[in-house]
Amino acid sequence: MRNQDQLCSIITIGDELLIGQTIDTNSAWMAQKLNAIGLWVHRRVAVGDGWKDIWSTLDEEGKKSGIVLITGGLGPTADDITKPLLCEYFGGKMIVDPGALANVKHIFEVILKRPMIERNLKQAEVPDVCTVIQNDRGTAPGMWFEKDGVIYVSMPGVPSEMKGMMDLSVIPKLKERFQLPPVIHRTLLTAGVGESFLAERIKDFEEALPEDIKLAYLPHYGMVRLRLTARGGREGLDQDIDQRFKQLRDSLTDVLVADDDKSMQLVVGELLRARSKTMSTAESCTGGYIAHLITSIAGSSDYFKGSVVSYANSVKSGLLEVAEDILMTHGAVSKETVEAMALGANQRLGTDFSVATSGILGPGGGSPEKPVGMVWIAVAHGAHVASRMFQFRFNRERNMEMAAQNGLNMLRQFILERLPG
Amino acid sequence: MRNQDQLCSIITIGDELLIGQTIDTNSAWMAQKLNAIGLWVHRRVAVGDGWKDIWSTLDEEGKKSGIVLITGGLGPTADDITKPLLCEYFGGKMIVDPGALANVKHIFEVILKRPMIERNLKQAEVPDVCTVIQNDRGTAPGMWFEKDGVIYVSMPGVPSEMKGMMDLSVIPKLKERFQLPPVIHRTLLTAGVGESFLAERIKDFEEALPEDIKLAYLPHYGMVRLRLTARGGREGLDQDIDQRFKQLRDSLTDVLVADDDKSMQLVVGELLRARSKTMSTAESCTGGYIAHLITSIAGSSDYFKGSVVSYANSVKSGLLEVAEDILMTHGAVSKETVEAMALGANQRLGTDFSVATSGILGPGGGSPEKPVGMVWIAVAHGAHVASRMFQFRFNRERNMEMAAQNGLNMLRQFILERLPG
Repeated sequence: MRNQDQLCSIITIGDELLIGQTIDTNSAWMAQKLNAIGLWVHRRVAVGDGWKDIWSTLDEEGKKSGIVLITGGLGPTADDITKPLLCEYFGGKMIVDPGALANVKHIFEVILKRPMIERNLKQAEVPDVCTVIQNDRGTAPGMWFEKDGVIYVSMPGVPSEMKGMMDLSVIPKLKERFQLPPVIHRTLLTAGVGESFLAERIKDFEEALPEDIKLAYLPHYGMVRLRLTARGGREGLDQDIDQRFKQLRDSLTDVLVADDDKSMQLVVGELLRARSKTMSTAESCTGGYIAHLITSIAGSSDYFKGSVVSYANSVKSGLLEVAEDILMTHGAVSKETVEAMALGANQRLGTDFSVATSGILGPGGGSPEKPVGMVWIAVAHGAHVASRMFQFRFNRERNMEMAAQNGLNMLRQFILERLPG
Repeated sequence: MRNQDQLCSIITIGDELLIGQTIDTNSAWMAQKLNAIGLWVHRRVAVGDGWKDIWSTLDEEGKKSGIVLITGGLGPTADDITKPLLCEYFGGKMIVDPGALANVKHIFEVILKRPMIERNLKQAEVPDVCTVIQNDRGTAPGMWFEKDGVIYVSMPGVPSEMKGMMDLSVIPKLKERFQLPPVIHRTLLTAGVGESFLAERIKDFEEALPEDIKLAYLPHYGMVRLRLTARGGREGLDQDIDQRFKQLRDSLTDVLVADDDKSMQLVVGELLRARSKTMSTAESCTGGYIAHLITSIAGSSDYFKGSVVSYANSVKSGLLEVAEDILMTHGAVSKETVEAMALGANQRLGTDFSVATSGILGPGGGSPEKPVGMVWIAVAHGAHVASRMFQFRFNRERNMEMAAQNGLNMLRQFILERLPG
């Protein structure tokens, strides 16, 4: 086995990735799956729809990696050149694959109940030099090629289709072929302390790490993730990384949010679930984003009852019962209003805990007294309420994210404070 | 000038991009900015934090492109090897840059009001062979190098910092140097017809396109974007693409959502603004996601008044006034409930239009009568209401996106139907 046989390259094909019309979320997902079976992605390359570009990229990545995974360029329309190119590259000729044909027919006749056109039938054609990977979520088949000891797998760019093929076919085949110890990741989440200060605190820990365990800092909207990664599978590596991870965690208890690679919304949900408590949100500037983060977690209906998004003042007074004179005297972006919103949410939605936001995310709407980026956040437990003012200084999108993450973190801290353990 | 001088490669550095912990959104943004000044990104490469990998990638991309933009690997912590590597690669030695030093000091003393540590001061060091690009949003300076006629620019991976440098320094410098006609993109958005059927409809149009205008199909959650791209700047190209775009648009009026690269939420907002009408949402299964999409648009407070996210039935009846017997008789996921939610939203939030959702996104919660993926959506205008049932068959995340996009599209169609022109 060559040194690079266990290294993977991911190639994504499509001009939409190059001109910024689409963001590649496939590669991140694929890398996690590959890591879990011990395969390391060391390069990811995006190229356009040009024949020469794709061809030379196949050549180059095949020299650097033992496994080359390709996504994109397999749809039914004419901008797709990937399949004929792969056919020529691997020296085959196009044939109709009976399994792929049956699949296309099944999708149109049974699921979509629509007539097929020639273009759809053509999707069942594959080079005769590949092993076909069936697609149970779409019409385009995947293709597995081998050449000069390198494995090439071509899959559609549609995320659900690619994921189905990886889970059902590609990962099991690779796992059987390579039989490697997994790459081990251990991640913890901190909030409230900057990257450089964290680094100072754990300097000695970091310097004492062995060669096969690496530490990385991943800052993310006011939080920092710390990740230990162990590769190679030496005797005792499992225990070694576990022990070091425990040591790291124990030295950071004051800033620790979670000792796993969790999102803030998942941590909040787990705290509520463990205490059999419910929550709601009352959102002005975050416009439903906190509710969206909470409900992106499956099973969140166990603890999340709902929200009032109160962009207009009439909704703050009408549905959250914020007194008109509070709005008049202090304005919508104020300690008084946001606290009344949080209290009103618990009362009107019948929840134990709530988080409320009111602020100016920009670009418009600021004033000398209340500049863009000023956000008030309150958390409430029954009739107990706490609030804090933040001054963010970014664009709308980032201010939204900062407000939501800080709101969730305040809620987390308030739950722990009010109902410890 | 070599042929590839106007071609760009983007290199992103960081293991977090390779193991799937972070999704790269920088490259898409950068590509759009580069296209606007006529520069074409033909490759995007992500590599890990390894010295050899980064070094060889600099070599390779420098052979393929005249401009190599690098992001990542410039934070204050020890996992960053990019700066010393660049120093050695371009044959310089490290010196303190007075401008960068003043910037680091300013950030700590004036903005953060925190003491600095050695690690922060070190960020002001740069190779003496680069032109420093000041960072007005963070502590790490950017660096502009030239070698063998190739431009290399290194920037931090934090999106806001990278964007600041691109807008203020990198794009203006590249624009002055190359003076190219912009790459012209024209995009339209369709809904309700599949990629292969669209392709059949516009086959003749596509075949008649000249060499320097390309058509691409970009499917996205039940919609398809069609994009024309013109490169090269021949005489009359502007007018040619405009005229062909008009022809394309006119042939697709029945499925056209927008004749620009707009999101569905922006289209809905524009329709409401033009009619001086307001809207609200009443969301069960989408959990605030539609409200979030609407409020991600700056200025949406002009037409969006708020939402009730009613995950719990008690919130549906308490805040949206859905009659208890409707919930009892038909259940939360039903035509009757979702129509009552939409009507209740208009009434309780005082809006002209509303959209309501109720369904089962999965993975849990399904039953034989109401399987996972079943979503009811209603739209209302005053006391007029319309609804439709959808059966999605994907995972939670994709079902959420499909429900939100279809809800917005139903709202768009209802606005046009109720208040045409």
